[in-house]
Amino acid sequence: MVHSVKAFVFDAYGTLFDVYSVQKACEECFSGKGEEISKIWRQKQLEYSFLRQLMGRYRTFLEVTKDALRYTCNKLEVPLDDQKEEKLINAYLRLTPYEEVQQVLKKLENKTLAIFSNGSRDMLEPLVNQYEFSSLLDCVISVDDIKQFKPTPASYALVLDRLGVNREEVLFISSNTWDISGAKSFGFYTAWINRTGEIMDELGVRPDGIYNDLRGILEWK
Amino acid sequence: MVHSVKAFVFDAYGTLFDVYSVQKACEECFSGKGEEISKIWRQKQLEYSFLRQLMGRYRTFLEVTKDALRYTCNKLEVPLDDQKEEKLINAYLRLTPYEEVQQVLKKLENKTLAIFSNGSRDMLEPLVNQYEFSSLLDCVISVDDIKQFKPTPASYALVLDRLGVNREEVLFISSNTWDISGAKSFGFYTAWINRTGEIMDELGVRPDGIYNDLRGILEWK
Repeated sequence: MVHSVKAFVFDAYGTLFDVYSVQKACEECFSGKGEEISKIWRQKQLEYSFLRQLMGRYRTFLEVTKDALRYTCNKLEVPLDDQKEEKLINAYLRLTPYEEVQQVLKKLENKTLAIFSNGSRDMLEPLVNQYEFSSLLDCVISVDDIKQFKPTPASYALVLDRLGVNREEVLFISSNTWDISGAKSFGFYTAWINRTGEIMDELGVRPDGIYNDLRGILEWK
Repeated sequence: MVHSVKAFVFDAYGTLFDVYSVQKACEECFSGKGEEISKIWRQKQLEYSFLRQLMGRYRTFLEVTKDALRYTCNKLEVPLDDQKEEKLINAYLRLTPYEEVQQVLKKLENKTLAIFSNGSRDMLEPLVNQYEFSSLLDCVISVDDIKQFKPTPASYALVLDRLGVNREEVLFISSNTWDISGAKSFGFYTAWINRTGEIMDELGVRPDGIYNDLRGILEWK
């Protein structure tokens, strides 16, 4: 493989951390609806981040996540009181990492390693610190610093600014097809982590590598 | 009701024309999958218009609609050959208008009436001409003129430019909650046509009126 990748840059939600690991907490709050809540919640969280960016009405991803949870509970007609909201948002701050994350990060220790996420620091820091990933990462980059959600080109440009690298020196790793499309369109190398046998979006770009889990990216070392 | 509405501006897809009326053609091409295809097709069409706007990779809505159809058929593992693609895209150019459209437009004939759509002219003109709405409308406004999809503020501003009105003189009518949110955030009066008992999005704005069908907007005359 001919490339000159210096920085491995990871999306957080869905890529390093399983967003559906909130399902258990959802189920405890609303018996029988845990799976459905976790799915709609995620879908609306993404949609609201896209729409707010388009509308020019940025709010932090934590606020967007709360809005999406409120929509979901309204939609499913289940009562979300303050206590349940706090419990579910706290669950989002303690998402489970995928099992191979730590070993893969360790094997890449001679590279620049970063997280680049739509999440605001009040969401990312509890996650990263809890699982002791901080010592393995050089940098946690949040779009909140410039209030431009992915997949805008301005958001991906923040990675270059923070890491001091060129586009073609970055391998961007995400399980989200929209994120891969945005990053590839911007000019990064891209590795799509396709854990569930999805198909790629028709947005005019293709990832440089497709892997079942994060171990696959070690061929870019 | 205290207002000074001069222009009634209608979204096209889902508001005047039933996007799910392609279901019959989908069913003829792919027996047993018509409903599922029409739903995923619409969902992806919207998602791709949002994502292309965010990525700065505009294509016309007709092209986006074709891309979304290709994704849908890949996803459902049904073979889309050129003949079927042409048949289904042609069905999209002949969507069925909702039954009350003509009578409502006629009752508003002393107002400025316009369509404002993400659709490109190669999609909108066949639709409007087929049902002889042209004589009832003062203007068909397509975002394609400025290549800025709704719900960006720049797209809604095109309405002001084309109609020579101020924001507070516009009643914008849509069945799409994201479109209502964008238009209200921009400063239009908004009427949400909620035909199917949906709930409003949590994007920080609320429509000025909510109606089961287009007849409700006549109270703004």
